[in-house]
Amino acid sequence: MSEVRVAGTGMTDFGRFPERTGRDLFAEAGLAALDDAGVDPGDVEHVFFGNFMGELAEHQGHMGPLMAEAVGVNAPATRYEAACASSGVAVREAVRSVRTGESDVLLVGGTERMTNMGTAGATEGLSIAADDLYEIRAGMTFPGAYALMARAYFEEFGGDSTDLAHVAVKNHEHALPNEHAQFRSAITVDQVLDAPRIADPLGLYDSCPITDGASAVVLVSEAFAERNGLDASVAVTGSGQGGDKLALQDREYFARTPASTAAAEEAYADAGITADDVEVAEVHDCFTIAEVLAIESLGLYDPGEGLGAARRGETTRHGDVPVNLSGGLKAKGHPVGATGVAQLASITNLLTGTHARSPDVGDLRVGVAHNAGGTVASATVHVLEVVA
Amino acid sequence: MSEVRVAGTGMTDFGRFPERTGRDLFAEAGLAALDDAGVDPGDVEHVFFGNFMGELAEHQGHMGPLMAEAVGVNAPATRYEAACASSGVAVREAVRSVRTGESDVLLVGGTERMTNMGTAGATEGLSIAADDLYEIRAGMTFPGAYALMARAYFEEFGGDSTDLAHVAVKNHEHALPNEHAQFRSAITVDQVLDAPRIADPLGLYDSCPITDGASAVVLVSEAFAERNGLDASVAVTGSGQGGDKLALQDREYFARTPASTAAAEEAYADAGITADDVEVAEVHDCFTIAEVLAIESLGLYDPGEGLGAARRGETTRHGDVPVNLSGGLKAKGHPVGATGVAQLASITNLLTGTHARSPDVGDLRVGVAHNAGGTVASATVHVLEVVA
Repeated sequence: MSEVRVAGTGMTDFGRFPERTGRDLFAEAGLAALDDAGVDPGDVEHVFFGNFMGELAEHQGHMGPLMAEAVGVNAPATRYEAACASSGVAVREAVRSVRTGESDVLLVGGTERMTNMGTAGATEGLSIAADDLYEIRAGMTFPGAYALMARAYFEEFGGDSTDLAHVAVKNHEHALPNEHAQFRSAITVDQVLDAPRIADPLGLYDSCPITDGASAVVLVSEAFAERNGLDASVAVTGSGQGGDKLALQDREYFARTPASTAAAEEAYADAGITADDVEVAEVHDCFTIAEVLAIESLGLYDPGEGLGAARRGETTRHGDVPVNLSGGLKAKGHPVGATGVAQLASITNLLTGTHARSPDVGDLRVGVAHNAGGTVASATVHVLEVVA
Repeated sequence: MSEVRVAGTGMTDFGRFPERTGRDLFAEAGLAALDDAGVDPGDVEHVFFGNFMGELAEHQGHMGPLMAEAVGVNAPATRYEAACASSGVAVREAVRSVRTGESDVLLVGGTERMTNMGTAGATEGLSIAADDLYEIRAGMTFPGAYALMARAYFEEFGGDSTDLAHVAVKNHEHALPNEHAQFRSAITVDQVLDAPRIADPLGLYDSCPITDGASAVVLVSEAFAERNGLDASVAVTGSGQGGDKLALQDREYFARTPASTAAAEEAYADAGITADDVEVAEVHDCFTIAEVLAIESLGLYDPGEGLGAARRGETTRHGDVPVNLSGGLKAKGHPVGATGVAQLASITNLLTGTHARSPDVGDLRVGVAHNAGGTVASATVHVLEVVA
């Protein structure tokens, strides 16, 4: 099988840009990634694109061809939708395409336009990631669903909102040097605890923001990279995807996310690594409790042990395995369809040393990106390694 | 690479079922396909699922996991959206997954719920398959877009509405023995010509209906089929995908669909066949002119020669290469996300002799399925062959 290399990365600023269309955002990120890779749009053989709710946000489906055109690519394009894991799934399919030898040069990305919907509109739109018949019509919202998961976690393992607050504080601190991040302001544990409650035990600062933005990476075969002298020292060495029942009510546990576990196990086996080899991770922290569940599902912590990781400093930039050095969804922002590829871009740039970050972080060679949809009914994990 | 076999097919009736949810429809089709294959839901490793506009029709995104659960499959699930080519793209990715050896047993399908939106609502919903900024806001509808394509065709090659009417008459006749078809009534050329004009030169009977329905196929590796003694004599031997600019205004020609041509060329090369080897085809006849453009893009006819094919009888059940023996989108119905997989199911059943059809059609060994999205900004072609 062909080895898959990351040849370039690009992203827009993440933030509040209600006047920018999805195609406008993706054009910026996609062209930045192609420029970074030194790849001509004419060389791209397929666009793999993630978007969650363009139908609702800007009355636009069938975005694959639209986005290809936006970056000057004349090739087939496919849109993936797996709620907040949309572009993680796009990455997975792109990796498969290069590995089979079917493709040598792919543009993979995602976009979401959200703030033009207003906060209530975006929250309502996001709800279609859950089960409309059995959750949404019963009044469930995503903060409510993750609050249930946090309560179940506290009941099973102990812990409290202060533990969760440390996750938010850490991710805000991590975002400080990230010029693309939506929030570049330090916060304190007291600020998190004093913030308005959204769905107890989760408050405003336990939640990621509503964000506009786009992200892109150029994936190439090792052979193409070598033939064209590309600077592509990072490989995607592992890929995994997991699934679960869509509605929380149909699951056995609320305090575990087996779809992420399955994705991680598949990705690690694919890469020939174990969780012990992971040096840095970007995980899907749509809420603080989600980061805790993610690092446990990734095998970085045993069940019940992940909650204290940020508080103990282990997942900060000073820790053994820094988590969400980009600021995560919490502080970098979460333009839903763009998030999975943005995580891949962040890990790539961390491994190549081009990520804006504190000098506390030393050389890194193995990172993982974890993207989740809904209440983790969909999850993808990708392993990236420095190979050249 | 592993050879990909079709182990089972299933579909709901296509028609007007406004009270049935997407999951309800897919459960019927998916379980029918699994039953037909003799495969247990527990053996399915991934669900590849196509849907176009569940967000608008039933306030539901993230349908992959929902559909897996609906058929009792506990495995990852991915939703593809490429407008009317949504499940054609899902097939393509599923084929890739089996070929790499990553999977042995996949459930591939699609669903669309439309009639609950009403005719005006469904037409409005369908419009998001085109460019919202530059087509829809200018008043374009899909009948209008295909009427433009028909006019461009007539200008370049000659021909008139009577030629197109023969396509509708043929497909209605083909649907007569298809128990799942929405329309099982013969029509005449005069009826087609006398029907109300929708967008000149296209009338009501040049257009496919608005349809609810679901379809599914079980794809397995040859090794799995042999190991488990499955009756799976049809292989997917070729797969291709093409893309084009989303908006008609950005294209060089209206009377050609190069995305379909690219998909066909790729699929034929993949299968090691030429257009001359094709014995039967299911093509994307959302409008009568679309069938003409499709059979030309598939290389079954030279540009300008496809229009008269139905009138001359060449694509009827008595002809050399029967087209849309199922009744096509025109008479079988077009539940958008289900169409691509329904075509694959129809071709499979034609090759195995289990398709309800006229006894005029003899033994067939090579068929193609052609699925298109929007004004053919996305297209997939799959080649199916009897191999055992």
